[in-house]
Amino acid sequence: MHRYRSHTCGALSTAEVGEIVRLSGWCHRIRDHGGVLFIDLRDHYGLTQVVVDPDSAAFRDAEKVRAEWVIRIDGKVRLRPEGTENPDLATGAVEVYAAELEVLGPSAELPLPVFGDVEYPEETRLRYRFLDLRREKLHRNIMTRGAIIDAMRSRMKGQGFFEFQTPILTASSPEGARDFLVPSRLHPGKFYALPQAPQQYKQLIMMSGFDRYFQIAPCFRDEDPRADRLPGEFYQLDLEMSFVEQEDIFAAVEPVITGVFEQFAEGKPVTQNWPRIPYAEAMRKYGTDKPDLRNPLVMQNVSEHFRGSGFKVFARMLEVEKNEVWAIPAPGGGSRAFCDRMNSWAQGEGQPGLGYIMWREGGEGAGPLANNIGPERTEAIRAQLGLKAGDAAFFVAGDPDKFVKFAGLARTRVGEELNLVDKDRFELAWVVDFPMYEWNEDDKKVDFSHNPFSMPQGGLDALNGQDPLTIKAFQYDITCNGYEIASGGIRNHRPEAMVKAFEIAGYGAETVEERFGGMYRAFQYGAPPHGGMAAGVDRIVMLLCGVSNLREISLFPMNQQAIDLLMGAPAEAAPKQLRELHIRPAPQAK
Amino acid sequence: MHRYRSHTCGALSTAEVGEIVRLSGWCHRIRDHGGVLFIDLRDHYGLTQVVVDPDSAAFRDAEKVRAEWVIRIDGKVRLRPEGTENPDLATGAVEVYAAELEVLGPSAELPLPVFGDVEYPEETRLRYRFLDLRREKLHRNIMTRGAIIDAMRSRMKGQGFFEFQTPILTASSPEGARDFLVPSRLHPGKFYALPQAPQQYKQLIMMSGFDRYFQIAPCFRDEDPRADRLPGEFYQLDLEMSFVEQEDIFAAVEPVITGVFEQFAEGKPVTQNWPRIPYAEAMRKYGTDKPDLRNPLVMQNVSEHFRGSGFKVFARMLEVEKNEVWAIPAPGGGSRAFCDRMNSWAQGEGQPGLGYIMWREGGEGAGPLANNIGPERTEAIRAQLGLKAGDAAFFVAGDPDKFVKFAGLARTRVGEELNLVDKDRFELAWVVDFPMYEWNEDDKKVDFSHNPFSMPQGGLDALNGQDPLTIKAFQYDITCNGYEIASGGIRNHRPEAMVKAFEIAGYGAETVEERFGGMYRAFQYGAPPHGGMAAGVDRIVMLLCGVSNLREISLFPMNQQAIDLLMGAPAEAAPKQLRELHIRPAPQAK
Repeated sequence: MHRYRSHTCGALSTAEVGEIVRLSGWCHRIRDHGGVLFIDLRDHYGLTQVVVDPDSAAFRDAEKVRAEWVIRIDGKVRLRPEGTENPDLATGAVEVYAAELEVLGPSAELPLPVFGDVEYPEETRLRYRFLDLRREKLHRNIMTRGAIIDAMRSRMKGQGFFEFQTPILTASSPEGARDFLVPSRLHPGKFYALPQAPQQYKQLIMMSGFDRYFQIAPCFRDEDPRADRLPGEFYQLDLEMSFVEQEDIFAAVEPVITGVFEQFAEGKPVTQNWPRIPYAEAMRKYGTDKPDLRNPLVMQNVSEHFRGSGFKVFARMLEVEKNEVWAIPAPGGGSRAFCDRMNSWAQGEGQPGLGYIMWREGGEGAGPLANNIGPERTEAIRAQLGLKAGDAAFFVAGDPDKFVKFAGLARTRVGEELNLVDKDRFELAWVVDFPMYEWNEDDKKVDFSHNPFSMPQGGLDALNGQDPLTIKAFQYDITCNGYEIASGGIRNHRPEAMVKAFEIAGYGAETVEERFGGMYRAFQYGAPPHGGMAAGVDRIVMLLCGVSNLREISLFPMNQQAIDLLMGAPAEAAPKQLRELHIRPAPQAK
Repeated sequence: MHRYRSHTCGALSTAEVGEIVRLSGWCHRIRDHGGVLFIDLRDHYGLTQVVVDPDSAAFRDAEKVRAEWVIRIDGKVRLRPEGTENPDLATGAVEVYAAELEVLGPSAELPLPVFGDVEYPEETRLRYRFLDLRREKLHRNIMTRGAIIDAMRSRMKGQGFFEFQTPILTASSPEGARDFLVPSRLHPGKFYALPQAPQQYKQLIMMSGFDRYFQIAPCFRDEDPRADRLPGEFYQLDLEMSFVEQEDIFAAVEPVITGVFEQFAEGKPVTQNWPRIPYAEAMRKYGTDKPDLRNPLVMQNVSEHFRGSGFKVFARMLEVEKNEVWAIPAPGGGSRAFCDRMNSWAQGEGQPGLGYIMWREGGEGAGPLANNIGPERTEAIRAQLGLKAGDAAFFVAGDPDKFVKFAGLARTRVGEELNLVDKDRFELAWVVDFPMYEWNEDDKKVDFSHNPFSMPQGGLDALNGQDPLTIKAFQYDITCNGYEIASGGIRNHRPEAMVKAFEIAGYGAETVEERFGGMYRAFQYGAPPHGGMAAGVDRIVMLLCGVSNLREISLFPMNQQAIDLLMGAPAEAAPKQLRELHIRPAPQAK
């Protein structure tokens, strides 16, 4: 017989009744029923009930055993007594009567129980992550994470993509976030950087003629920790294709993501034909470029109804050309209590308040705004918004560029408060036509609005002839339930267009060469048109596991102070190590 | 029609004759045959011959095109004229007569041609890696690398292993080579380290109850560059299993590796049932713990034939108890010229010479040794070694611990020189029973001989009661054609045995806690018996691609000075970056 097990703890059924078996695992739960010990023995595959009574030779050893000890038992499989079967357990029809018991790994007093579902402080959970990971939910989430990555990989291969590994020790590329640096031992005073994303490498892979690249890519950003972002490293499903337009990327990616979501959605509906929402439309309708489409509310411009009206605050605002009034419809929100609650919430968000109209039974509008603009305009607003008695609408006014973010939050709030959001579905969409540039009010200059490597719509002609702030890019996101889960673009593969694009953002050709030298050089030697995208693996796993904290789907995460409590990192380095790396600590007086 | 292609450059056959098609790709080779242009258009999938003559509207554009320009062409598929078909090419029966041509990406003068197979300096190849990677052999090797990794992954899953990603920003663990360090921004004076291997994490995954782990794991060692080792990063097929003995690891791994080799061996024989060679036997027979078993030569101890003989040099040596004389048989090596050549080689290796006996036609031994020991002893040696007329044997004498490495080199040399090594096969074997400890003559102390985490054979009892230098470990390697391609062990999962094992090597319990704190802590809370191994992905790919330089199977390698010539890493960091990381350069006067 095998030294440790003839079966796993998830394998036994009535088919094995009468057999002598050997199991090894952790003592999940131990109960003493009138001198008879019941041990739920657990391994990765399941739980089996082990019975030891005083007649068994194993009894004396079994009495010593405590929760989370690792033991081996030999014994005979038997049916559980009638009425004690557990239909929720794969092995619930049987139990093993132990004849022999060996302790393989005893356990000290537990700082964190494995059995049960009690919340524990994060510090304890991370310091004893190996115990935390034995707990049912986290253990299952980690396995789901692996299965999701497997599914991504096989679906990407099904779409004709090849997997590559790009270097992790590479060059600093100050395009976005802060780099992690690695001092070079052989080259004093020089540093490698960990990749924020394999952006340049994947484009170089296209220059190298590989046609379709993907990678489950580790990425590194030294950003300040945030609730929805773990410090340090994260994973992207990264992809790139040659000889493609935006439509080809969509055609390749949409079935992969839809497929993965369907596979792990546990029956929840998943969008089949994704809507494509231009960035500008997303901002107007939802107040965000990552709308939660489970929320049915769509904002509308209702400026005309307030222009020259008796509500002087709005009317005067509308005398400034770019100002507008937007309405957030609130079906079912037509009560004073709800409207006041929203108004208070808006004040909590730093707004002066939130104007509203309620429509009473019978249909007449009520509230200060309705009183000021009169019944005709009130009715016109109701008609435009398609509302009815018992509903309400909220209004934000001013410069849309400035209020749009708040308007988006208000839309979300109304949807949540009125229970209009169907949580049990995955609403996926493309957001397209992102602006190439944006105005940086602080520096009074034009900046790249997203990825500087994207191809402007209209190409070099647009760059040469168009107001930069009106240029759209072949740049797109995937949004799911209010989260951006992927982002990509068709790349600017013409060196002269790349130089021009950077010039508009205030960078000379020498900057391009210096910062993106490898890629810029490659563009000189036969660059194919190409594009791609990168999806956030961790975010997708979070959505599919239904958790709201990245630590619930990460194996060995750091805490929010970027400390690995389990391994004790970061730590002081030996003076010899620092000497070899030609650096020394430089504490700052602040 | 698609903007860039209706077919790839590897797709067209006689089935498409008469169709109007669109292709995009690189101009691989351009020939002018009497005013008619032949362009071999290349993409990832193949080559298609494009024809443009002066009657075509595309002719003027085609005349401008040079090697490696990226173009799109539209044209009609036609049969190649009889006698000009190319049966070596998938598309060799047809050609496309171009009606339209668009330049998608022109190329500057090439620093490195893509067509052809000329050697280029490494610096040029790495600086223009995107061109180098377009070349047929390297492009194919990189694709084979990906396919080998795919095969490893799917075979590991077939054996019931689950894939995990372990952290890359982790703690320094001064067990083996030098770490790469990453300064922490949030914790002044502290550093993360990149993992030399996920050793501790994979053991922690077992402590967490996951049962069977694997990973295609990036590993980082800041070692001095060597011909067969790229600086920086490399990949391991890393695995670990719980509730197993050594036999279980062998049963899981052997079919994975055999399967992968067979899949990519292109018909070369691959060992089916791997021999298991104890470390001590490997050293005696082959003079190395990674024997090339394609070499049929087996060394033998022939001390008895020299003891008290007329060859006084050896006879006197053998008066010291631990000294021995080993013979390297050399079938077919029985010529003065060969024996002299081997003798000169040995002198070049720093040896005083290499004694030999030749057996002439008729069977009598010849040479100085034979003359000194006489015909009877000479004949006894021949009989023991199973040699015949025309053969020779070489002899090394002294303390085997000191000469064994040279003896191994001599065995290899004889095998190579006499063409006894069948290059066209993959000989795989387990090397087992590695010693747990070895004597460090420099420090006059006992050291771990390999992995300090391995379980000693005999467990805690052996550690307590046995001469440490006689203790074997459950530690094993896989050897292939003279290379160590994998290494592993059953782990020491009992904290008291771990402390004792380290104590023998001179480390206190506090050292174990400090260096391996996470794992040591985990051992206290119910640790399952477990073991595993790690295989060198790059080495296996090299063997299967039949190349001898890692750069031929790596996508974007650094050069031997650990410089990434393509991306320009390492590079100087901005003063602001260093300030944020609380470090400053410390140039050393030397």
